[in-house]
Amino acid sequence: MGAQRVGVVGASGYTGAELLRLLASHPDLDLVLATSREFAGRAVADVYPNVGLPLPFTELDMDALASLDLVFLALPHGASMELGVALLERGIAVVDLSADFRLKDPSAYPAWFGSEHTAPSLLEQWVYGIPELHREAIKGASAVANPGCYPTAALIALAPLLASGIIDPATITVTAASGVSGAGRSLSPGVHFSHVDGNFKAYGLPTHKHTPEIEQELSLLAGTDVRITFIPHLVPMPRGLLATCIASRATDADPNDAADAFYADEPFVRVLRDRLPETKYTHGSNHCLLSYAVDVRTDRVVALAAIDNLGKGAAGQAIQNANLMLGLAETAGLAGHGIYP
Amino acid sequence: MGAQRVGVVGASGYTGAELLRLLASHPDLDLVLATSREFAGRAVADVYPNVGLPLPFTELDMDALASLDLVFLALPHGASMELGVALLERGIAVVDLSADFRLKDPSAYPAWFGSEHTAPSLLEQWVYGIPELHREAIKGASAVANPGCYPTAALIALAPLLASGIIDPATITVTAASGVSGAGRSLSPGVHFSHVDGNFKAYGLPTHKHTPEIEQELSLLAGTDVRITFIPHLVPMPRGLLATCIASRATDADPNDAADAFYADEPFVRVLRDRLPETKYTHGSNHCLLSYAVDVRTDRVVALAAIDNLGKGAAGQAIQNANLMLGLAETAGLAGHGIYP
Amino acid sequence: MGAQRVGVVGASGYTGAELLRLLASHPDLDLVLATSREFAGRAVADVYPNVGLPLPFTELDMDALASLDLVFLALPHGASMELGVALLERGIAVVDLSADFRLKDPSAYPAWFGSEHTAPSLLEQWVYGIPELHREAIKGASAVANPGCYPTAALIALAPLLASGIIDPATITVTAASGVSGAGRSLSPGVHFSHVDGNFKAYGLPTHKHTPEIEQELSLLAGTDVRITFIPHLVPMPRGLLATCIASRATDADPNDAADAFYADEPFVRVLRDRLPETKYTHGSNHCLLSYAVDVRTDRVVALAAIDNLGKGAAGQAIQNANLMLGLAETAGLAGHGIYP
Amino acid sequence: MGAQRVGVVGASGYTGAELLRLLASHPDLDLVLATSREFAGRAVADVYPNVGLPLPFTELDMDALASLDLVFLALPHGASMELGVALLERGIAVVDLSADFRLKDPSAYPAWFGSEHTAPSLLEQWVYGIPELHREAIKGASAVANPGCYPTAALIALAPLLASGIIDPATITVTAASGVSGAGRSLSPGVHFSHVDGNFKAYGLPTHKHTPEIEQELSLLAGTDVRITFIPHLVPMPRGLLATCIASRATDADPNDAADAFYADEPFVRVLRDRLPETKYTHGSNHCLLSYAVDVRTDRVVALAAIDNLGKGAAGQAIQNANLMLGLAETAGLAGHGIYP
Repeated sequence: MGAQRVGVVGASGYTGAELLRLLASHPDLDLVLATSREFAGRAVADVYPNVGLPLPFTELDMDALASLDLVFLALPHGASMELGVALLERGIAVVDLSADFRLKDPSAYPAWFGSEHTAPSLLEQWVYGIPELHREAIKGASAVANPGCYPTAALIALAPLLASGIIDPATITVTAASGVSGAGRSLSPGVHFSHVDGNFKAYGLPTHKHTPEIEQELSLLAGTDVRITFIPHLVPMPRGLLATCIASRATDADPNDAADAFYADEPFVRVLRDRLPETKYTHGSNHCLLSYAVDVRTDRVVALAAIDNLGKGAAGQAIQNANLMLGLAETAGLAGHGIYP
Repeated sequence: MGAQRVGVVGASGYTGAELLRLLASHPDLDLVLATSREFAGRAVADVYPNVGLPLPFTELDMDALASLDLVFLALPHGASMELGVALLERGIAVVDLSADFRLKDPSAYPAWFGSEHTAPSLLEQWVYGIPELHREAIKGASAVANPGCYPTAALIALAPLLASGIIDPATITVTAASGVSGAGRSLSPGVHFSHVDGNFKAYGLPTHKHTPEIEQELSLLAGTDVRITFIPHLVPMPRGLLATCIASRATDADPNDAADAFYADEPFVRVLRDRLPETKYTHGSNHCLLSYAVDVRTDRVVALAAIDNLGKGAAGQAIQNANLMLGLAETAGLAGHGIYP
Repeated sequence: MGAQRVGVVGASGYTGAELLRLLASHPDLDLVLATSREFAGRAVADVYPNVGLPLPFTELDMDALASLDLVFLALPHGASMELGVALLERGIAVVDLSADFRLKDPSAYPAWFGSEHTAPSLLEQWVYGIPELHREAIKGASAVANPGCYPTAALIALAPLLASGIIDPATITVTAASGVSGAGRSLSPGVHFSHVDGNFKAYGLPTHKHTPEIEQELSLLAGTDVRITFIPHLVPMPRGLLATCIASRATDADPNDAADAFYADEPFVRVLRDRLPETKYTHGSNHCLLSYAVDVRTDRVVALAAIDNLGKGAAGQAIQNANLMLGLAETAGLAGHGIYP
Repeated sequence: MGAQRVGVVGASGYTGAELLRLLASHPDLDLVLATSREFAGRAVADVYPNVGLPLPFTELDMDALASLDLVFLALPHGASMELGVALLERGIAVVDLSADFRLKDPSAYPAWFGSEHTAPSLLEQWVYGIPELHREAIKGASAVANPGCYPTAALIALAPLLASGIIDPATITVTAASGVSGAGRSLSPGVHFSHVDGNFKAYGLPTHKHTPEIEQELSLLAGTDVRITFIPHLVPMPRGLLATCIASRATDADPNDAADAFYADEPFVRVLRDRLPETKYTHGSNHCLLSYAVDVRTDRVVALAAIDNLGKGAAGQAIQNANLMLGLAETAGLAGHGIYP
């Protein structure tokens, strides 16, 4: 069997660029198409000299997409709704990296994103793409909604605690901090180097649009409706994301043991016992580093998760999902180790 | 009246260096002495070319100190206990920048710092040096314990909320993030540039030694015993500190209004309405920027405070305290604006 | 005598913002006006929370300018030509921070900037504003052309060597590196934090537009026509500039001695003997740090100069010039020490 | 044929860690041994969580080394001389990443490194390991001296110019700038994050110890004795190196054409025509990006080369050399693309 043919739609952003980088050395996927309005006609190697691909960026062309086995959609919010549906109708598997198909509840779209979903009846068929939570469903799916970076870290950190009833789901707060690539490649005063360097801030208060996605999955895990306070921050670094989750204890069980058991066979999740997660150790990889502590004075649990927001938080996880969907080894093309220092 | 004579003991660390920088252009204080074992014999201008002072660093000499009006102690924890007491006995005013005199409860020292306090009976006479909370006491004091950087930000953020009963004191969590200078000038693998750059992490879990200091002052404000969960983080930037405080609402009062009222006449505290605090705007200054938000979905209040950890979080506040103790204008020597970008 | 009244035209850029910061605490200058098309109507304190000025930005208004003693022009290239001339005609002193009046040779404007100068006959009356080279002329001037950041560093480094004949003027190369604020506040992919952080590059090859300005002044110093190769680089830091100048030796004289003599009484220039200049020690100040070495193997001299590109390289030097023009102490408002770390 | 067995001696430094990272996913080399006095007994995965290898670090043991096909020596200068000779005597191939075997002239060691070489008669048998210059010799070698990071960049930039006689070899200056990992993992005040961040400086003036290595190879290329002025600088970034080389033109030939021809078939060298090299595009890879410009005003050529100092400047090139020595595909294990942003 030859390699399966894949394409990336919307390859001019950082997430798209990371998909190109990873696909360029994927042993079992053949990257044959990358669309970008901004860069159409130029070779990938000219736009991104780090990725030496001669493949030219092209304009979006439905017929060209129709010949592929799987398409990664890396478009801005709202732009995937129609295209995602159209691709599925033609029998092409899709991993969508936007928020367009992540929420099961159609009413959440107007509430959180300001406009109605255009295909509400199809939302149920999209699988929320965290393999550590939904592996079997992803294996059988042709439509996967790849999670946001913050939700990925928060959910991997909190899942073992909710699954084992260690924390009170009504008390969860998540403060998280991301590198600047999480804000995308678009220009604004807030991403000017001179402004960001030496700067740290919170943003998106009090209701960042990643909140409902986290709550949806936490509610599934807890078996009850969960609402959280989620506060994202911006760190002066290009990549990396740390979620710091705090909740009241419901039992005396050791959260580290719970996480060890929950993630025993996971290739990309590691529970650290003797040190705390640092984002740098995930730089450029698909790994998630976890650590747990109990504050006995206040009877609270602290759960920490570090990922690369463009790796496990976006493009890496998208490839992990695609591997599962296409019947490949889950780790194919993701074996590279993080770069340090 | 001529300028009053001051000295800095332990001037080789970052906090000491910042004191030298600020004192070098203070209009009413005359810096006549700076001690440093490491740099004794060398001119300040040679060690720190940014501060063009010809003053030589000297070894610690009690007789030399005895001629001063006020001494800033910038020594490691534990090293100020004896010296602070000795200076007071000789009638010299002291601002101590360590944790040695911050806690009123002697039993907190063995519990949090691992050893007994050597002068427990004197702890009551030290004033906790946040002028916005204890201005009148500081004015009359000859002994001021200058607060830690994290406590300064957290307390200034939370004080109006507790004073007005807006939040439930049993539900407070503080996640905060500091630039690397907060860890001091000492060398360790954790401060190597190649390790820190592009890296973000939590540390000191679950009970950082700044916790009791925050709890002591919050309890005073709340009129009840307060315990918090406090999680510090390290940001890849030299200076700057942001405290993100979350607590459940106890009333519907607007936290911004409460803060505006509480800090109405403060020269160094500013409540932002249309934007969120960013550490960069405090870079090199003694200012604290605040902002508040209410998450009505979860009925929680979020309070943010940004400071320069070496400014309002250490040396700047020490000079503000000294100004008050010596009867000078509170803002003397602190009028400089933050550097941006 | 009261403070003299000054204004800043074009105060929305980084150089303008640094002028506002410095003028806000200048003891002898009264900042009464700041124009900005982008920010007109908003208070300085709202746009730049680091500078707590209530002064509102206004649109450019010639009548308002006419009441001032001195105007700082911080406009893009080409935009000062008309305004600079008009202000002088009304008897108002001008410090122009653009390149519009730096070159004496009118033919250099079309050659290097692509368009004719609109007031070529007036170029001679503008004094090139490096006080260390042209102090007496600046004192008597009402029109000063403030130098570029790269020229300031390169000229201060090389002046003692050319003045004393230590180097062969035909062999000079200058490679220099600047922080990102030198590229201005305008947005482009090249200033996105995610692109700049962890990145180092040369740019503007082979003929950056600061070249003729450096050559003009080097030629004056050498008494012969000097041409150089000048290669600028971009450093992932907001501020700071280092010029590394290399030339063949013409005599055996010690360049450090020559520099010591040349800058003996200068308040802002310091020749380091035991260490090399580092940009960080000039952060936020008007200082220039110098160092010299001789490579006897190749018979070449290396001259290093570090400045803050927004300080001595722009706004700081502009205020130094204004002080001289208005008969104030040269160091007024510039006594602040650099911030470290 | 099974994979060949390799080991890394001195794996606790940054170069050693990068070798481990690359070898961990090398398809044809089996990493069976990593020595480190500092980390002996701990697993690689514990020390470097980015590299998930269970392999434990061990103490140096000659018998264990004797079973290997090839050993990478990543020891400090001076420490490889004896071990390198001993391994060769036992018939084990060696790639030494120190300077101990780079210079052919024994007298250069006392002159540049302060002590005599202990095996001067063996220096001739070590091949200087830049495959682009010495590929055939490396293929047949059992002893390769892996070049320094600065020499790699400078030599790849200058080789086409000297080989084609485009520049005057008597006029070469090299100013170069490296990320901080080039200074190693050892702690010193000069690598403290708070000192380095926001800082740029030159160092090692006027005669850095990489100079003779550059001159040796330039002399071979030019066919005449070449001396250069080489000035290194430190950039506030963990990785990346740019060499900016300037020399007078000797002919009118186009340096870009010369470089295109010289590197026509090279897998890791790329001559950019429409943009200049930026270090970021080599981050984590073994690539070298080149660009050339002619300053016709001064008749000088500027040659720029960007590499990752730990990739093509150290560990990547070492693996490239090992691949050639062991008869593997030259690009094996080095196919990964640089990480951006």
